[in-house]
Amino acid sequence: MAQRVGFVGLGIMGRAMAENVLRAGFPLTVYNRTPDKAAILAELGARVAATPRELAEASDVVVAMLSGPEAVYAVLAGEDGAARGLDRGKIFVNMSTISPAYAREIAGGLKPLGVQYVDAPVSGSKRPAEEGSLVVLAGGADAAIDAVEPLLLAVGRKVVRCGAVGQGSLAKMGVNLLLAGMAAGLAEALALVRKGGLDGDILMDIVASGALACPLFAAKREMLASGYYPPQFPLKHMAKDLKFVLDTAYDTGAAAPLAAVLSQLYGAGRARGLGDQDFAAVARVLEELGGGRAEGKG
Amino acid sequence: MAQRVGFVGLGIMGRAMAENVLRAGFPLTVYNRTPDKAAILAELGARVAATPRELAEASDVVVAMLSGPEAVYAVLAGEDGAARGLDRGKIFVNMSTISPAYAREIAGGLKPLGVQYVDAPVSGSKRPAEEGSLVVLAGGADAAIDAVEPLLLAVGRKVVRCGAVGQGSLAKMGVNLLLAGMAAGLAEALALVRKGGLDGDILMDIVASGALACPLFAAKREMLASGYYPPQFPLKHMAKDLKFVLDTAYDTGAAAPLAAVLSQLYGAGRARGLGDQDFAAVARVLEELGGGRAEGKG
Amino acid sequence: MAQRVGFVGLGIMGRAMAENVLRAGFPLTVYNRTPDKAAILAELGARVAATPRELAEASDVVVAMLSGPEAVYAVLAGEDGAARGLDRGKIFVNMSTISPAYAREIAGGLKPLGVQYVDAPVSGSKRPAEEGSLVVLAGGADAAIDAVEPLLLAVGRKVVRCGAVGQGSLAKMGVNLLLAGMAAGLAEALALVRKGGLDGDILMDIVASGALACPLFAAKREMLASGYYPPQFPLKHMAKDLKFVLDTAYDTGAAAPLAAVLSQLYGAGRARGLGDQDFAAVARVLEELGGGRAEGKG
Amino acid sequence: MAQRVGFVGLGIMGRAMAENVLRAGFPLTVYNRTPDKAAILAELGARVAATPRELAEASDVVVAMLSGPEAVYAVLAGEDGAARGLDRGKIFVNMSTISPAYAREIAGGLKPLGVQYVDAPVSGSKRPAEEGSLVVLAGGADAAIDAVEPLLLAVGRKVVRCGAVGQGSLAKMGVNLLLAGMAAGLAEALALVRKGGLDGDILMDIVASGALACPLFAAKREMLASGYYPPQFPLKHMAKDLKFVLDTAYDTGAAAPLAAVLSQLYGAGRARGLGDQDFAAVARVLEELGGGRAEGKG
Repeated sequence: MAQRVGFVGLGIMGRAMAENVLRAGFPLTVYNRTPDKAAILAELGARVAATPRELAEASDVVVAMLSGPEAVYAVLAGEDGAARGLDRGKIFVNMSTISPAYAREIAGGLKPLGVQYVDAPVSGSKRPAEEGSLVVLAGGADAAIDAVEPLLLAVGRKVVRCGAVGQGSLAKMGVNLLLAGMAAGLAEALALVRKGGLDGDILMDIVASGALACPLFAAKREMLASGYYPPQFPLKHMAKDLKFVLDTAYDTGAAAPLAAVLSQLYGAGRARGLGDQDFAAVARVLEELGGGRAEGKG
Repeated sequence: MAQRVGFVGLGIMGRAMAENVLRAGFPLTVYNRTPDKAAILAELGARVAATPRELAEASDVVVAMLSGPEAVYAVLAGEDGAARGLDRGKIFVNMSTISPAYAREIAGGLKPLGVQYVDAPVSGSKRPAEEGSLVVLAGGADAAIDAVEPLLLAVGRKVVRCGAVGQGSLAKMGVNLLLAGMAAGLAEALALVRKGGLDGDILMDIVASGALACPLFAAKREMLASGYYPPQFPLKHMAKDLKFVLDTAYDTGAAAPLAAVLSQLYGAGRARGLGDQDFAAVARVLEELGGGRAEGKG
Repeated sequence: MAQRVGFVGLGIMGRAMAENVLRAGFPLTVYNRTPDKAAILAELGARVAATPRELAEASDVVVAMLSGPEAVYAVLAGEDGAARGLDRGKIFVNMSTISPAYAREIAGGLKPLGVQYVDAPVSGSKRPAEEGSLVVLAGGADAAIDAVEPLLLAVGRKVVRCGAVGQGSLAKMGVNLLLAGMAAGLAEALALVRKGGLDGDILMDIVASGALACPLFAAKREMLASGYYPPQFPLKHMAKDLKFVLDTAYDTGAAAPLAAVLSQLYGAGRARGLGDQDFAAVARVLEELGGGRAEGKG
Repeated sequence: MAQRVGFVGLGIMGRAMAENVLRAGFPLTVYNRTPDKAAILAELGARVAATPRELAEASDVVVAMLSGPEAVYAVLAGEDGAARGLDRGKIFVNMSTISPAYAREIAGGLKPLGVQYVDAPVSGSKRPAEEGSLVVLAGGADAAIDAVEPLLLAVGRKVVRCGAVGQGSLAKMGVNLLLAGMAAGLAEALALVRKGGLDGDILMDIVASGALACPLFAAKREMLASGYYPPQFPLKHMAKDLKFVLDTAYDTGAAAPLAAVLSQLYGAGRARGLGDQDFAAVARVLEELGGGRAEGKG
């Protein structure tokens, strides 16, 4: 019989993922802090829980796709929190991006309850979430990952096993550091050539023709050309993730000079009111540092 | 009748490019500061000139693929320099990476001689040079570029017209800034996850499965796994190119915070004796800053 | 009647400060994780407590001068922790450097016990601690600061009132950021001139003659000349403090581009085994990045 | 008999220095690109030359205090340039800040004319220039420095001999790197505490009480408090000097991670229109990166 799934967090990513869980045939209960988002899932057949606790009580597996550690804590803790509804044998699958250290801390807190924790952040943003083609970066006991693998494959096309709890989150740190660097690097290169009078499209064409060509650059091309950044992955989340990258590097002693400067650039974006735009809006920060956007014309 | 081509600079890139010029049927004269490299081309049918001046006298078009501005200056200047052999109507095609400002300066110096300058740095390194699949970033008068386009298409698969003299070099600044950032970003992400105990191969697999996948990362994977960096594009050249990026950004007022830190990282690689290794050896700098390479095991 | 004082943490700073408390006539109980350090104070007339709890029970005011937040937590928490011995009306004076956020968190935890928290990190290192000439950066309720001011003036020459709990720690963040930047700036300037062949002493003389002259540079001159860094303020503590600076900047949205790069430099020092040397050993990191120390000779 | 002195460059610094040369009794000829500034010196007894060449012809020693290498080049070169008026045995004293490499280049150009070059940049800005209390960082042949020492002591209170030509400029690179770092460090610390609600005056008081206290911080206090930055040392000149620092570090292989980020910060100031304000206006850049200036109130 299919696992009863509880899904918490119905933002840009979570809503698409929850729909894919439903489509895959899992009985689904949902919870969202702002209830209107849950209503959409209800129309598709999900049950809506009034509290995280109620959701956990009604589920074998609770999946969280939230904006960060504070939100994960808020869902788990307190009288109405999910932890109260998680009995022995249940599994808590955290797909939110948090630091490896915090993943281990939550797992440690759930262990005495007999609840297993699976680290399952994803690589991919809005589009892959809708298409069910995310890559899941799993950390945790093999048996626990085995138990939720069909569920994970309802939202993703691949589950990469990274090791113990926290290692999925660690892999995610690596991916997002690279992602942040590539987007900012492209934006800085564009700002450089435009300031010198070159049309940004020419640079984009060259990049698209060579060894640096990647789906990310294709996906952001229109945003960078227009200067309009509808959020696929909000900049404020990238600013937060880079903070976790720096926290993780501090803990392990890894050098992170690029993460350090990236954290400042995305942080400046957040401070300057760009937090709810796509993270490619880091281009705005770079343009402003150079005295305003130049429109290179070739 | 085919243009008589003179090719100066037979390093990793230049030798492969000169061979492609020969293969395309252009009568070819070559010159290299260290003559043994010219001998290889001679066996394939090229004439070897004793000086850049002699080469220029025997050619309609002189192509330079040198390590930087000092080398370009050395080839052009002096009693035996190419400039003395360049008559009215000849074209000097500089495929070496130099700053846009220096490209304009050389062009300005050749103009009174009636010699046209074409800016033609390339995107791509050793392999595309061998395969004739480079992308040429051309700057200069349209008529001059038209005149050398068949020649450029002997070494590249595409000629992107960027504008006036200097704009090809400007585009190259953008490409190399992005290239430097992507390689260092990948290296930093790898160092981060390894320090936390994750096998670097897992991160490389995840990256290869998602929106960040690109030929560059595939090409550098083996180097980054083994820690052995045979030069495709020597690190010292990247250090130099980043200096030109910063010079260019200073001139135009563009912000270049990533270029600034990248310049320090590749510069540290050069100072620490990694200059002749591939530029991916920037990974060594990052590992050393973190106290040594960690071998994450998942 | 003089307050009964409990002093926890007898490191480089704490031992000197505790001696000054004794000298000022306060009845003193001390506790240190490694008991031999407490023995020295015992010879001078202090009572030695077996646990932080016992110390707190015997004191009206508990002063902590510890290496960071983990140590402060360890002293307060648990069965034998100081919190168990702190009754209503007692005051906990934290002179350790922690982040403002953590100061507020501890204060919040003690409040229900009726215990007041005073934020009291200090500006100054080993020498001023010995001389009782530290500057105390106080945060907390005025009445609480009033109550401990005589005690604070036993270890310092000045108490600067910064506002509510956390604001003393915030001021300390500012001071240590500047301190880290000045030491690293001097080290980078020295490395620059030495690489160019100038004797570092010449630069130090010039700096000592002008608007940049300050006691810090005089105090570090011998270390920077000799390359031998006996700890006055260990580098690992500076690395930690810069982490708190970045945490604080992240929380408030402040830009901290210098703190970001400084955190990497001192962090690299820690990762490369320099953590127990004086923080001026950041000079070693800069020298190594440049390929080794150069001995400019003028 | 007193040397006949020619003084070129009557900006903020140069005018005050030229007045001190006059006051010390040297027969003085002046030249300035914009003649009105020369008129003021004429009223005090200086002769005004129509061109740099005429000035050089009338002088034994030519002193230049200009805004940078382009200005120095412009004064020396061409039909009306000073070089045409410099005969064998004359001395060219360059007090402008240029890179060591450029100092050596100019010296090399003057040598065949039998003209000696003395490197003599200064430590100190407007006030010390007016008071004649600058510190002169001299590079060049001892005999040449001996010959101009009385003149140098008319504008400064101390001549520090740094070695051969270029070493005075190298020392200046070190001083200005440190100066840029200290001003930006103070600004970043202020922005940090203000964002957290602390009155910046409190931090300034603490800094003024401790080991970091220096005349620079006292001199900039009012500017940083008011946010109004009348130029003592214009920000655009600091941006330029940091470019020379990076050029120099690139040439020698020195690591300069702080110079790299400082160059970006002052460069952003220049790009954002703050170039003619005092360099302490880098505080504006830091405030803007944090979303605007916060007015901490303690």
